[in-house]
Amino acid sequence: MNHNLVDLLIHDASVWTPGGLLVDGAVAVRRGIIDRVGLMRDAHHWPEPSRRLDARGMLLLPGLVNTHTHAAMSVFRGLADDLSLEEWLRKHIFPAEARFVNVETVYWGTLLSCVEMLRTGITTVCDGYFFEDAAAEAAERSGIRAVMGQGIIDFPSPDCSDPSRAPAIVRQFLDRWKDHPRVKPSIFCHASYTCSPETLKKSHALARERNALFQIHLAEGPGEVDQIRRQYGLTPGRHLHGTGVLEPGTLAVHCIHLDEEELDLLASSGAGVSHCPESNMKLASGVAPVPELLRRGVPVGLGTDGPASNNDQDLFGEMRSAALLHKVHRMDPTVMSAPQVLDMAAMGGARALGLGDEIGAIEPGRRADLVLVDMDRPHLTPLYHVPSQMVYAASGADVHTVMVDGEILLENRRFVHLDVDEIMENVRKIKKSVKKSSSSVIGVL
Amino acid sequence: MNHNLVDLLIHDASVWTPGGLLVDGAVAVRRGIIDRVGLMRDAHHWPEPSRRLDARGMLLLPGLVNTHTHAAMSVFRGLADDLSLEEWLRKHIFPAEARFVNVETVYWGTLLSCVEMLRTGITTVCDGYFFEDAAAEAAERSGIRAVMGQGIIDFPSPDCSDPSRAPAIVRQFLDRWKDHPRVKPSIFCHASYTCSPETLKKSHALARERNALFQIHLAEGPGEVDQIRRQYGLTPGRHLHGTGVLEPGTLAVHCIHLDEEELDLLASSGAGVSHCPESNMKLASGVAPVPELLRRGVPVGLGTDGPASNNDQDLFGEMRSAALLHKVHRMDPTVMSAPQVLDMAAMGGARALGLGDEIGAIEPGRRADLVLVDMDRPHLTPLYHVPSQMVYAASGADVHTVMVDGEILLENRRFVHLDVDEIMENVRKIKKSVKKSSSSVIGVL
Repeated sequence: MNHNLVDLLIHDASVWTPGGLLVDGAVAVRRGIIDRVGLMRDAHHWPEPSRRLDARGMLLLPGLVNTHTHAAMSVFRGLADDLSLEEWLRKHIFPAEARFVNVETVYWGTLLSCVEMLRTGITTVCDGYFFEDAAAEAAERSGIRAVMGQGIIDFPSPDCSDPSRAPAIVRQFLDRWKDHPRVKPSIFCHASYTCSPETLKKSHALARERNALFQIHLAEGPGEVDQIRRQYGLTPGRHLHGTGVLEPGTLAVHCIHLDEEELDLLASSGAGVSHCPESNMKLASGVAPVPELLRRGVPVGLGTDGPASNNDQDLFGEMRSAALLHKVHRMDPTVMSAPQVLDMAAMGGARALGLGDEIGAIEPGRRADLVLVDMDRPHLTPLYHVPSQMVYAASGADVHTVMVDGEILLENRRFVHLDVDEIMENVRKIKKSVKKSSSSVIGVL
Repeated sequence: MNHNLVDLLIHDASVWTPGGLLVDGAVAVRRGIIDRVGLMRDAHHWPEPSRRLDARGMLLLPGLVNTHTHAAMSVFRGLADDLSLEEWLRKHIFPAEARFVNVETVYWGTLLSCVEMLRTGITTVCDGYFFEDAAAEAAERSGIRAVMGQGIIDFPSPDCSDPSRAPAIVRQFLDRWKDHPRVKPSIFCHASYTCSPETLKKSHALARERNALFQIHLAEGPGEVDQIRRQYGLTPGRHLHGTGVLEPGTLAVHCIHLDEEELDLLASSGAGVSHCPESNMKLASGVAPVPELLRRGVPVGLGTDGPASNNDQDLFGEMRSAALLHKVHRMDPTVMSAPQVLDMAAMGGARALGLGDEIGAIEPGRRADLVLVDMDRPHLTPLYHVPSQMVYAASGADVHTVMVDGEILLENRRFVHLDVDEIMENVRKIKKSVKKSSSSVIGVL
């Protein structure tokens, strides 16, 4: 048994529970599971813990859930910005991916992203990319909880020059990771405009057979709407619904350009949604109808999207942007309240990934994926209202200590077992080759 | 002479200059002024400095300029959010201000905000509030460069129960601070819907006479447009232009609801503009036509607005929000590029405040208001493009060292001469009284 998995008492914390804030609260962890949640005056009578964590001046939050990223793309962070989607993809991202995405870059890029995410309080990530086996190895090493999606498209991809071989790669990936307690394999069909209905149906059937999350981008930009209409005579939401892949166990990412009927189809399907406000803003994709999705009871989580499009992976920033964007878009400051948005970042994300019974809240029986936020900071002073402070004032840099399954991964802002310098150094080396040939790469395509 | 004002050499930095990035750069500071900017290979031949600052792995930026806040309102941070503007102001903010805004709360609230701002790389702030004399004392103590605006409205205010006495308070305030090298007095007429044309004209004439910045909110929300139309039969931009106060030396804050002709009037007036994207989003005020203002050559800076409406004062966050908001609002990812936004946060703000010759860029002859950003961080790795990294990935928490007039105020994330714990403690005490009586206060009005 891992020596960090012993019992733990987090004491003298402010604890954010589904019932509200416990001031002078405590949480006991046993074998990676939240055992007890209560007030300090009661905690004095709980069984003696092996270890105590003094949380005075700190707020204990459920670990945040990042429902969408392409973590390995941290190696391209800031390579090309402020461009049209077409120019960004065709002239910069696709050529760079074709040339530099391999087992090594995916491993180090993903590991860097896991470090960035854990550092800012993300304890669960849902990823989709190529060479996902290497990405899953990086996630495993980091200690983060992960749903890792092996990418599928109907074109040659960095890890599969012959698309007919893609299903075999996916099967192998699902087999290898099927029994891992913390890293779950998943299938990431890129989108309806890069995957035929047949590819979608087959991949979805495999995902169902293996009980793996089926991820797909849906209705991200106006270009996609045009293309799907031309190709299939339908809007993206109707087309995807027609393929039969919208079901519980499916995560639809972005979901921006959907009409009322498509929102109803999505809501009745049982699929989850990942909302990525900063990516949607930066790429000018549009504003997702999130209040309408929430009103229909759709499980909606927040996502950072990949660091080549966002360019960081800080879910505190996404919370702020989610709250602010929808208010100004509707000219209504009451939509997307701070409590609603904080809930999306934890329980909403957990439900969207099908993990709603395991993580997402501080309650006995759930996994001890927990985050201590240092509240003794000028910009978090004074404190009237926890959700307001988290959504409108806090940042990922305020995260002090992070644990997954009760194992402390970050303590007092330092990683317990990861060599962050080594990871950054390896990514800088990758960047040097990208940079050196980026002009010639851009010339090629 | 202050012992911190001795000569200083910042060496081995990446230096962000108007001409681009100097890798392996150095900056020499003499008597608070930037003396030399160059490459390390040349710096070896510069005069021997009294002190050296090792900036390896760091980026040297010009200090950021926050062109609009109500710093004292940090005491109300998060008191009330997600409400309509009307409910927020009438039921929460105005009653709380009437009861709790006094010399002491303004002093400690402003000092807390100065700490927050310096901590995140803001070296110049433009403030507008009541009891501004106490606010100016706090700014002076903190070491920040400040333009402090004494508030004027035609109604009883926290510091002036009889509005006819307001001009005398303003004169006294201007007199007291007129010769301070770092804290400049200014006049802050709240808005056209709270100040009569006569008040505006008289206050503006006084500001011109004393060479003080004249600040005013302009065209912030749809409600203001309606009210000014009803009252004066004109849109807010035309009405304000008609009063004659739009001139060089005037700062118009928000400038959201302006038509093409009003934009032309503003551009030809020579007035500066403060753009506060996060406040505008959170209060659902609208989206300011910033690309149109920039195209017309208007000096536009960024502002956080007060911490009761935003709720933090981190200009890195405002940079991000400014870039993202305008892209999605226009469905064009190429507007408000990272270099443009980074420029707004420093030189744009300096010009908007009439300080364009003194601060805002790293060039010999300008004041040594400088910020070192720690680039050795996972979310800032790798580095392809400095403005992209600053706007889309960095946060105020990445700021490592800050100086104003060459005096180091923050070093390695610690304040050199401020007791931050004492400041936070005093604000927490104020919060306790606000909290205790907030329900009864809300009942009063």
